[in-house]
Order: sequence, then C-alpha cells, then structure tokens
Amino acid sequence: MGKLDFWYEFASTYSYLTAMRVETVAAEAGIDVRWRPFLLGPIFQAHGMDDSPFNIYPVKGAYMWRDMARQAALLDVPFREPVSFPQNGLLAARVAISGGDADWVRAFSKGIYQAEFVDCLSISDVVVISNVLQKCGQDADAVLAKASSDQVKAKLRAGTDEAAALGIFGAPSFTTNDGELFWGNDRLEQALEWARKND
Amino acid sequence: MGKLDFWYEFASTYSYLTAMRVETVAAEAGIDVRWRPFLLGPIFQAHGMDDSPFNIYPVKGAYMWRDMARQAALLDVPFREPVSFPQNGLLAARVAISGGDADWVRAFSKGIYQAEFVDCLSISDVVVISNVLQKCGQDADAVLAKASSDQVKAKLRAGTDEAAALGIFGAPSFTTNDGELFWGNDRLEQALEWARKND
Repeated sequence: MGKLDFWYEFASTYSYLTAMRVETVAAEAGIDVRWRPFLLGPIFQAHGMDDSPFNIYPVKGAYMWRDMARQAALLDVPFREPVSFPQNGLLAARVAISGGDADWVRAFSKGIYQAEFVDCLSISDVVVISNVLQKCGQDADAVLAKASSDQVKAKLRAGTDEAAALGIFGAPSFTTNDGELFWGNDRLEQALEWARKND
Repeated sequence: MGKLDFWYEFASTYSYLTAMRVETVAAEAGIDVRWRPFLLGPIFQAHGMDDSPFNIYPVKGAYMWRDMARQAALLDVPFREPVSFPQNGLLAARVAISGGDADWVRAFSKGIYQAEFVDCLSISDVVVISNVLQKCGQDADAVLAKASSDQVKAKLRAGTDEAAALGIFGAPSFTTNDGELFWGNDRLEQALEWARKND
C-alpha cells in the first residue's frame, strides 16, 4: 500500500481543509496517510520571518481569508475566522505527537481544528484541549502530563527539524517515500497519485 | 457572456502555465477573457520585497522549480528553467500593452513565454522580442516604436496600479466584474466558474 506523510500545523488555515478531507480521499486512492503534526514557527524564523507571511504581507493575508471562505464552501466544510491568527498550537501539537500513530490523534487533530476554525475558541487554552481529548475518549490529565514530558517535546522538535530538512516551508505539506514534496491543500490529490504510482 | 481579466507578468512561471491553456478552458466555460499584462516588480517593492519571493526564500524557490516541472508535465506543456529568474519583462509588457485587445497580443505573449521557458532566451533582448513579433505577423520596428511611447508606458503603469488596487500580489491572478480575486494557475477553473455564475 502506498504511503504519504501529511504535515500539518494547528495554526494553519489550509491544513484545516486538508485534515477534514484527507481520510476520505486517501481511502479512495488506497494510500496510507501518516499524520505528522509539526511547528511552522521555527521554520518561518529560520527564513527570517517572525510572524505568519499572511500577517507580514497583509494584502496576501486579505486574499487568504477570502480564498479560505470560498474553498471551505466548495469543500462543504464550515469555516469562521479564528479569534486570533496565527494561534499558538504548541501544546496541541505536543498532545498530537504524544499519541504517536494511535487512531485518536486524527480525531483529536480534527477536533482542535473545529475548535479553532468553527467554534472560535483559543486552542492554546488547556481547557479547550482537555475538552477535545475527552470527546476523543481520552484521559485528558494523563495525556496532558505525557504531552509535557521532555521526551514528547524532543520528539516534536525532531519532527519539525525533519520537516525543514525535507524542504517544507508551509502547511499543509505532503512527502512521499521517494522524496517528493507537495505543498498546499490544492496538491493533496497529486501527492496521493504520486504515492500510488511510485511507492 | 461572462468576462474575466487574466493578469500576467512575463517573468512569472505559473503565468506561463495559464497562458498556454487559458484560451482552451475559457472557451469551454464560455467566458470572454481579457489578457492584462502587468508588472509584479512595483507590487513586490510596495510590500518591501526587492526580488521575487522565490529568491528571497530559496527553500520556497527550490520547491517552485520542482512543482513547475511536475505541473508542466501534468498539463503536457514543455518547460525548462530560464536563463535567469526573474527575467526583466518590462519591454515585453509594453509591447503587449501597446497592442490593446488585438488578437496578436495573445500569440505574442505565448511566444514570449515560449522564448523564456522553452527556448531559454532572454526576453529583455530586443532581438528576441522582434523575432516573436515577426512570427505574429507584426512590423517589429513599428510595434517597438509605439511600445516605447510615453502613452504606452503610462498605460502599463496605470494597469499595474489597477492590479495593486484590486488586491493583486502575485501572478497569474484573475478578477471578475463583481470584484472577486483569484490567485494562481490552480484557481483558473474556479475563477471561470465564478464569472460564469455571477457575471
């Protein structure tokens, strides 16, 4: 079975669009997708940017919000502008990393995106994260304790370093076993097709 | 008949992809497309960038070249990396502007893109531009004389100002009569559909 890594950042608007549809289209394509939460902040900083490019270039940011509204409508997913942008997704990313390849990580990640881009909540709020964990059937306190361990922190840093080493500069991104990189929700189908043909 | 403005910059790789296919897909969609050459340089400068973002952020640039090769293959158009990037498309843009809505402007624009991204020529070279004009059945000397007139220079500046006022920050872009902006070759079909439904 072909494999594809789906790299996502919890603050990323277009990552939300992919998260809500990747399971369906990957199943149709017969591709096994590994969810890879990472942090864009350190990558932007390495490129000399101390904020989202959508804030650094406000004209581009204005376009992104309009495009997101249109894309969400086309994909039939709800979308509201978040309470702030970009939100701090560090703790949510540590939680997701702490779950490894467990099934609940996907439901948790989609729950965080829904809190952020549908329910207009702050995803750095530990109460919000706990509520999402509970909806996923997890023991929130136990997961949060593990998520704050040095081991998980190091694993998230290593994953972000791996993303940078793969040439990732934005989210969502997709990487294949043979080293191809695809960037953006618009490239999901091409990435799946590449994985199907070349894996 | 629905109408759509296609904004293109001669240095822009993704504008090339659109230029080679827009006539076919617009005819299928029943949309009248107006070709609008403009300059990205002044717009980038207004955003504080003195070079292409693909050069300012080399990791993003490396991705763009790989993505262009893949997109060109998918669209079945030839593509080679140009002799330099971004090339200076000022004179070519003035020539295109000087032709107004004449049919030869489309053939000329595609000819310039072919010189740049297939034949690896310098599109700021007046000999290259003259050759493309001659292939389009134009009197190169007469067109070049008109292209260097104050009137044409002012018209290109005004068009670039109009692009900026419409919120355009990259190329290709598409604008509709009701004020929608779409950015990128990937959005051509959505822009045509919007024009079809709302114009």
